[in-house]
Amino acid sequence: MAIPYWEDLGRIRSRRPLIHHLMNYVVMNDAANVTLAVGASPIMAHAKEEVEELAAKADVVYINIGTLDDRWIESFILAGKAASKNNVPVLLDPVGAGATRLRTETTLRILNEIEVSVLKGNGGEMMALAGHTGMVKGVDSLGEANIDVAEKLAREYGVTAVITGPRDYVSDGRRYAIVSNGTPMLQYITGSGCMVGSVIASFMAVNRDFLVASVEGLVTFEIAAEKAERKSSGPATLKLHLIDELYNMKPEDYGMARVELKV
Amino acid sequence: MAIPYWEDLGRIRSRRPLIHHLMNYVVMNDAANVTLAVGASPIMAHAKEEVEELAAKADVVYINIGTLDDRWIESFILAGKAASKNNVPVLLDPVGAGATRLRTETTLRILNEIEVSVLKGNGGEMMALAGHTGMVKGVDSLGEANIDVAEKLAREYGVTAVITGPRDYVSDGRRYAIVSNGTPMLQYITGSGCMVGSVIASFMAVNRDFLVASVEGLVTFEIAAEKAERKSSGPATLKLHLIDELYNMKPEDYGMARVELKV
Amino acid sequence: MAIPYWEDLGRIRSRRPLIHHLMNYVVMNDAANVTLAVGASPIMAHAKEEVEELAAKADVVYINIGTLDDRWIESFILAGKAASKNNVPVLLDPVGAGATRLRTETTLRILNEIEVSVLKGNGGEMMALAGHTGMVKGVDSLGEANIDVAEKLAREYGVTAVITGPRDYVSDGRRYAIVSNGTPMLQYITGSGCMVGSVIASFMAVNRDFLVASVEGLVTFEIAAEKAERKSSGPATLKLHLIDELYNMKPEDYGMARVELKV
Repeated sequence: MAIPYWEDLGRIRSRRPLIHHLMNYVVMNDAANVTLAVGASPIMAHAKEEVEELAAKADVVYINIGTLDDRWIESFILAGKAASKNNVPVLLDPVGAGATRLRTETTLRILNEIEVSVLKGNGGEMMALAGHTGMVKGVDSLGEANIDVAEKLAREYGVTAVITGPRDYVSDGRRYAIVSNGTPMLQYITGSGCMVGSVIASFMAVNRDFLVASVEGLVTFEIAAEKAERKSSGPATLKLHLIDELYNMKPEDYGMARVELKV
Repeated sequence: MAIPYWEDLGRIRSRRPLIHHLMNYVVMNDAANVTLAVGASPIMAHAKEEVEELAAKADVVYINIGTLDDRWIESFILAGKAASKNNVPVLLDPVGAGATRLRTETTLRILNEIEVSVLKGNGGEMMALAGHTGMVKGVDSLGEANIDVAEKLAREYGVTAVITGPRDYVSDGRRYAIVSNGTPMLQYITGSGCMVGSVIASFMAVNRDFLVASVEGLVTFEIAAEKAERKSSGPATLKLHLIDELYNMKPEDYGMARVELKV
Repeated sequence: MAIPYWEDLGRIRSRRPLIHHLMNYVVMNDAANVTLAVGASPIMAHAKEEVEELAAKADVVYINIGTLDDRWIESFILAGKAASKNNVPVLLDPVGAGATRLRTETTLRILNEIEVSVLKGNGGEMMALAGHTGMVKGVDSLGEANIDVAEKLAREYGVTAVITGPRDYVSDGRRYAIVSNGTPMLQYITGSGCMVGSVIASFMAVNRDFLVASVEGLVTFEIAAEKAERKSSGPATLKLHLIDELYNMKPEDYGMARVELKV
């Protein structure tokens, strides 16, 4: 099975899909710029008075719980339900699940009440959701997961599960993929996991095979990071060049993809 | 009529006017840095308990509705009324007007209840406010406006209307200006329109002819962008160098201005 | 007395302490990236439902009132009390104290109700708290303080007082330090004072002599700024390289420290 990276990136650029983000405050700016760089159109909006209207006409809704509070949680649910009602796919990033009760419970509530297409988190968060405790410290992961955790989550919640880390594990419960691109310095950029979510969401808008869209997003972001690293002297220049490299992706760049696929 | 770009930039740098921003979360950091780079003093504050006190002693109040909710709307009104009462000019950026009912209605409410000096938006937003529907997708514009739309808005709302885009249209209902500086890559920077608002607001603090101040702000920002583009390889490096270039503006840079003025 | 800069930076990097930030919206992203760059683990969280749980297990709690409102104030108090109860030190940044009643009163309330270990502000803010009025304009300082102001605040509030500026004044009421590193261009980066707070907080996690930790944080941040300035052409490239330089600190860099210490 060949992954249509370049064709789908071209579809993003020509269609400019609307990605409605309910994105944490820390990463709002970077996530919007990353979304623009791959060619999609981001809107950051979370007021309960308008999230249903926006989610209904968005191409993808991206719920990121990174700086949640009671008002945001209400909007997550409203936006998610409006998305489901209108067949708009939802990406959920359970930032800090396992770190506080509020985050774990909010994640479970969203998974119960909303039809989530892709659940994407780091090793610690995803292991916490799979029942392994003690793997998170704040919003940083203390351990690497594996493909079994992804498969378990995919089946349990009926999602495509994406676990980011040194190696990324993707499973829809039946098929799986392991992506080995990227660079360790991404851990020193706040919200690099949230940003990759924006890229995955952009691909979800043009490819409804969400396992494929997730791999496309991971590979695109991480190849851009590898190219950026060559020009960088630390995490700030890495983030800078990463966004430029996303904007400048070329078909041949996808020759750098390191993906193990079992379909 | 000669536009006193350099003289007014010098006034900003020597007086350091206080620009009270009620700015969306996405662009708060960039807008503050842009304001500092031109020499003004930004404060980002939106709590209903303090916006009246701040607006009353600010030199300009900049209301940007980009990430509005009910609490922000209350503060927009409080800050705007305190500004009017103290003869502090108000710049309004109706981000996403036309995209949701909440945004359109909030914009109209502010225009009705507050004395707005400058109304600045992109083509889609401003056409929506002028009664043309379907020109917005999220917060991005789908079309270019023209000087007639600017003139109509200026007369209807008693403002200086500024429509940003490949060409910027400015009208106070009697005189007009068309600015053709800038670069298309600005569209790939989230909030580039919001940032130009910070520069216009800084000029409004030192020049009460708001058509002139608007042209000064547009030209300053867009010449800095043109200079920055030469050093850039994508939207992230463009934003980086744009802020540096604003800080480094020289009198001769204004020789790059491309302005059609009818006064 | 030799200050163990490099040893303590090494402790941050190996222990990766959790720094719980209640950080203003403007600087959240930069503060998180600065914290990661020195090797600590930031979490930005302010919901009243989770701040107690997070503050209790954090290594340091950093309360920054820069974009306060009634909901944030409630969370400042909850987080601060949970920190005190669990012997977690608190750093307070009273952004804009003296500029509005809300900010001054909130600062005094926090100082009264919470055990603050380090109180860090710019000259205008700290002079306002010491009873000198008229030294602030928005969030920018209009004057330089001196060591007597720091000593007075340290004694009055039982804190280590840190006054940032061209020269930084640190006092615990008995001992003092004056740090002369840094560059004037830092004033053109929004939140540079907030970012230095993140670095001080990271050192507080590994050195409970808070006068020493404050000096370590100031010196580390400001030497990185000096190194960054050599590669910079304005405030945006300065911020960029500053974060990279924090990540790349070497033991010999501390030879640049300019500290007058009286212990």
